[in-house]
Amino acid sequence: MKKIRVSTKENPYDVIIEKGCFKDYLDISNQYKFTSKIFAVIDSKVYKLHKASIDKIIGSANLYSESIKIVSSEENKSFQSLQKILEKMISTETNRDNLLLSIGGGVIGDLGGFAAAVYSRGIKCVQIPTTLLSCVDSSVGGKTGINLAGVKNIVGSYHQPSVVLIDTEFLETLPKSEILSGIGEITKYAFLTDEAFFSFVQKHLDDLLNLDQKVISRTIEKSIRFKADVVVEDEKEILGIRKILNLGHTFGHAIEVDQNYKIKHGQAVVIGILCSLFLSKKLGIMDNAFFEKSIDMLSWFKNKIDIKNYNARAMLKIMRKDKKNFEGKIKFVLLQNIGQTIVNVDSDEKLVIESIDEGMRFFK
Amino acid sequence: MKKIRVSTKENPYDVIIEKGCFKDYLDISNQYKFTSKIFAVIDSKVYKLHKASIDKIIGSANLYSESIKIVSSEENKSFQSLQKILEKMISTETNRDNLLLSIGGGVIGDLGGFAAAVYSRGIKCVQIPTTLLSCVDSSVGGKTGINLAGVKNIVGSYHQPSVVLIDTEFLETLPKSEILSGIGEITKYAFLTDEAFFSFVQKHLDDLLNLDQKVISRTIEKSIRFKADVVVEDEKEILGIRKILNLGHTFGHAIEVDQNYKIKHGQAVVIGILCSLFLSKKLGIMDNAFFEKSIDMLSWFKNKIDIKNYNARAMLKIMRKDKKNFEGKIKFVLLQNIGQTIVNVDSDEKLVIESIDEGMRFFK
Repeated sequence: MKKIRVSTKENPYDVIIEKGCFKDYLDISNQYKFTSKIFAVIDSKVYKLHKASIDKIIGSANLYSESIKIVSSEENKSFQSLQKILEKMISTETNRDNLLLSIGGGVIGDLGGFAAAVYSRGIKCVQIPTTLLSCVDSSVGGKTGINLAGVKNIVGSYHQPSVVLIDTEFLETLPKSEILSGIGEITKYAFLTDEAFFSFVQKHLDDLLNLDQKVISRTIEKSIRFKADVVVEDEKEILGIRKILNLGHTFGHAIEVDQNYKIKHGQAVVIGILCSLFLSKKLGIMDNAFFEKSIDMLSWFKNKIDIKNYNARAMLKIMRKDKKNFEGKIKFVLLQNIGQTIVNVDSDEKLVIESIDEGMRFFK
Repeated sequence: MKKIRVSTKENPYDVIIEKGCFKDYLDISNQYKFTSKIFAVIDSKVYKLHKASIDKIIGSANLYSESIKIVSSEENKSFQSLQKILEKMISTETNRDNLLLSIGGGVIGDLGGFAAAVYSRGIKCVQIPTTLLSCVDSSVGGKTGINLAGVKNIVGSYHQPSVVLIDTEFLETLPKSEILSGIGEITKYAFLTDEAFFSFVQKHLDDLLNLDQKVISRTIEKSIRFKADVVVEDEKEILGIRKILNLGHTFGHAIEVDQNYKIKHGQAVVIGILCSLFLSKKLGIMDNAFFEKSIDMLSWFKNKIDIKNYNARAMLKIMRKDKKNFEGKIKFVLLQNIGQTIVNVDSDEKLVIESIDEGMRFFK
């Protein structure tokens, strides 16, 4: 069992990574002295696929549990779903000493986490991510929230989980496109961390797609360790340190909206990283050698991501609305080299449009 | 100008009390280095009554401001209003570095504060309470939120303001019943603080109702100082210290719901305190002398609060649902003497019903 400590100031917590650890929930819950009164927010698809094991835990005689199933989709990351969850929590008499369990991917984790953040002004929450993407990304770090008026995550809270349980068994029922989405986000960590991890990821891209247990486990651990360090230093994104995690995300979010969320997050992040690389090069921030090396890494995705049409001007407009931007100016996270990021970069909008064009065409 | 420092751990802030201080907003904003980009949530009734002075500030050429007017009512402390505010913030391109200004009573402060808490995962907020009740209560302490499914404040956040501006000029347009509501909450502080303040309040009840400037200012200051000390010690209601502020509120909330929010909060708190006194006596917690003294204080409200019908059993049910209760058991804040509270008191439900009956009949 791998255990990563996220040493946030107020409520430090553990991330547990182990195949099959979900079936040990009761032991883990005892170990952390969690209450046995839980309210579970469950991805309805995950529930169908893992009904037996989920029922065994949630329905255990040792737990007093209530639950709600939510169809996981970006459209459901909404006020309506949040209200539905909170109303069910009220009608089942969930109180402030109860624990919320989020079982699902990023949408469910963000929704469930936000419900936990605001119910009774905050109750404890355990994140059980079931997609590769949420394992390495949203389950750790405490960002929760919903979309509103077409703006992603514009409403939310920082609410750290009390524990994150990563059971890689859940990954085995994922469609390939979903695993690829996780690999997209992992690629971001490869760029952010160091040469060694960059090479490891590049070497094992196929192994990751085939869910090689050892590779997956090591990659998740390494990615989370990187993220945890950043989160601890800048929990609420005040110092700007946390901004580096947004590499590829300013472009990425605009791509997701432009593609009507038909493209998965990790795939959009891969294109977003590529757009950032093009922009970095245009701005003279990175040298040719690193650029070639990066293109080499991202080429693996070439026959796996497919973009038909896009509207660069519309994307620019979306980026201006991105909540990451100060005083309405778009701020980019760009790369000098592996592990060397520059944040808050301004750019002429013409260069941004060009970078979007080059990034998108790469996958056409 | 009176200034009270609320020394919360992360973001300590000042409460400024002065007649006419709202017109100095620009100076104050400069002094605290606030951004000039603001989004104001304004009670529409307050706006009508103080249009000239609000427009002068909000419409100042030195501010870039957007605003929304909200009709203040308990029913409007809802998901719908929250969403309306947040959507307007998005459409006016409010970003995470902007400041939210809440101008209004408790409903507007709680709604605006909650919008500030969750917009872009939290932006700064200045509270400008315009009712006596919100001056001494909700504007300080960081509790924000909305009602859902008939449960008060069940959804919300702890989000401390960056400054609280108490301009007693706003109080002069309040109806008497609203001033009385503030006095109800002040009475709670009289019971919680010490003999001196208890006597001061009792002696000046009529002066408070007549808005005697000196008395009002001293009373607000004393009440806030008490609350600030409690909030600093137990910001997120974890240690239980903050629970003493709920004196009269477990009964009080049930009374508000039972009376369909036709009774004002402070009036319900007065009855709630009385019910608590009856319960304290039944449980042998307080002696006769203090009981008589308390009844003497509360008798001032007798011809000012009017209860026609009530349903004690329904109120009991509401109290069980109150988010303050652990594991579904109703927990009371009771009084031994002035400044001597006991929290987390259990009680036989029969005694609770009797206390409701005695408290309600007192005002029939």
